[in-house]
Amino acid sequence: MLSQEIISEIVGKGLMSLDWQKEPQNLYEPVEYIMSIGGKHLRPHLCLTVYNLFSDNITQSIVWPAMALEVFHQFTLLHDDIMDKSDTRRGRPTVHCKWSENTAILSGDLMSIMAYRFLSQGPADKIPALLKVFTDMAVAVCEGQQKDMDFEKTPFITMNDYIDMISQKTGALIGGSACIGAILAGRSEAVCKAFHDFGMNVGISFQIMDDYLDTFGDAKIFGKPIGGDIANGKKTWLLVETFRRCVTESQKKVLDDIVSIPEDEKERKFSEMSRLYTELGVKDDAAKAIHHYYNLAVEALDRAGLNGDQTEVLRGFAQKLLNREK
Amino acid sequence: MLSQEIISEIVGKGLMSLDWQKEPQNLYEPVEYIMSIGGKHLRPHLCLTVYNLFSDNITQSIVWPAMALEVFHQFTLLHDDIMDKSDTRRGRPTVHCKWSENTAILSGDLMSIMAYRFLSQGPADKIPALLKVFTDMAVAVCEGQQKDMDFEKTPFITMNDYIDMISQKTGALIGGSACIGAILAGRSEAVCKAFHDFGMNVGISFQIMDDYLDTFGDAKIFGKPIGGDIANGKKTWLLVETFRRCVTESQKKVLDDIVSIPEDEKERKFSEMSRLYTELGVKDDAAKAIHHYYNLAVEALDRAGLNGDQTEVLRGFAQKLLNREK
Repeated sequence: MLSQEIISEIVGKGLMSLDWQKEPQNLYEPVEYIMSIGGKHLRPHLCLTVYNLFSDNITQSIVWPAMALEVFHQFTLLHDDIMDKSDTRRGRPTVHCKWSENTAILSGDLMSIMAYRFLSQGPADKIPALLKVFTDMAVAVCEGQQKDMDFEKTPFITMNDYIDMISQKTGALIGGSACIGAILAGRSEAVCKAFHDFGMNVGISFQIMDDYLDTFGDAKIFGKPIGGDIANGKKTWLLVETFRRCVTESQKKVLDDIVSIPEDEKERKFSEMSRLYTELGVKDDAAKAIHHYYNLAVEALDRAGLNGDQTEVLRGFAQKLLNREK
Repeated sequence: MLSQEIISEIVGKGLMSLDWQKEPQNLYEPVEYIMSIGGKHLRPHLCLTVYNLFSDNITQSIVWPAMALEVFHQFTLLHDDIMDKSDTRRGRPTVHCKWSENTAILSGDLMSIMAYRFLSQGPADKIPALLKVFTDMAVAVCEGQQKDMDFEKTPFITMNDYIDMISQKTGALIGGSACIGAILAGRSEAVCKAFHDFGMNVGISFQIMDDYLDTFGDAKIFGKPIGGDIANGKKTWLLVETFRRCVTESQKKVLDDIVSIPEDEKERKFSEMSRLYTELGVKDDAAKAIHHYYNLAVEALDRAGLNGDQTEVLRGFAQKLLNREK
């Protein structure tokens, strides 16, 4: 097995090799921009890490589907930023702010198509399986994003609604990344499914972590302003768990009053809501929930028939991800 | 060979069989809406017509890639309507007007992914070739759309620029449709290329026709308001040809004066511009240009090694398309 550093290098080189210096410039430049402003590259990294559990022979045709995952992920961010009206992403202006909304729509469309191009440059005998998993994953991401938008206009959602939504919006892509790594390594369907479950649960805990950091993180490290979720009325793990806990009339009133604070008082809304999260113990319990899904992820690995060393690599991957501050 | 009516029926049944009654409703309902408001279904029709030149055995796995073409086409219309800020499409409100811009973005994203799902349900041995042609075509459509938007902000473009742009924006998808029909029928690469050229040239003449109808058509038959292109400063065949003809200073001034008429006087702008087109003979020459590309399309068929009956089917297909008023 290769070290995680070497896998990072392979991912980095793969991304560097993608050629976005094409015409028309107004279409490709935003793609190059969003692809270059960094991020963790967690999806291609996970894909190649899973593949590498079974083979050190990471050829170009193995790298292409990993690139497809990153390009698809960045496409979803590009379009999400339009829909969420976000001005910054990783401390940099978003594409629709730097260029225009039309540019962001069209460059995103191109990225989604390019993701399929890169996917189809994978090993010929694996293409049908890759296409199926990739497309199922991509559809789930759209469905999850729609639910997320629907929930913004819904006064109340349950924890089941929330977990279902983030399973699709975040879990599906990370699950798909692990699964695609296993497909590339020629594993059985049952083993591919186990890796999918691993990634799915890592994704869920990752999203709860993201929700947590949006309220309790450090803006400088997190790379985007803190408090956006509260200002936008996003149904985060913290808020949904708070719904669940506010059962008495007086508790409900306290929560309602904070939720009703208008947009132009977003600083007061933020400070009152984050204090409520802390007082109710929701802040601490978010950490427990993150751990719960981490445990489910590790349990899924038991079904992948791995040895100790192999398990350790993925356990380490998940731990590193969940000990993040950004 | 089957009749064109039977092929229409197969296309219609295929489209009816697509299941858009899914959750979340806000994601799938706009897809069902745009897929149901009609249109000519010219791309799946052409694809199956080409396939049918060589085989009457139109199985479900042959129909899927044809469906992919229509879903992809409708996706491009959905996103184009946002970018062009169009309120109506075929006499009905556009998705972003009826729902919202966010809905239109996300439902479009889903459609592009679903197009790949349907494509990958084609015959297993043809998948790599289908993916390549489909993706090249999809990339070309995005590039063409970007050029179209770039040209709106460019005071002057040449006829070469214009033909290059519509080759990508309109020609590529119709060329791809014919080519995919030939791939499904197991034809050689050279023959697939000949069909691609046929569709490409049909597409170019089709777009010039569309430009023509946007100024000289009948709104009731055309299904959308007349004069949108002139109001929006679109670089149509008519305008680009007019650029080419206005060579003296006084001619240039006449044209400049009309082009500079502000948006709030769009009726005066339309009547003066359409009169200029007629006076300069540009209107009549548009008909000649349509015929020129029709001839190129028919010449491409010579390279496909067809017999007289087969040639006649495609010649009839192209003629019917170019004798349209909508």
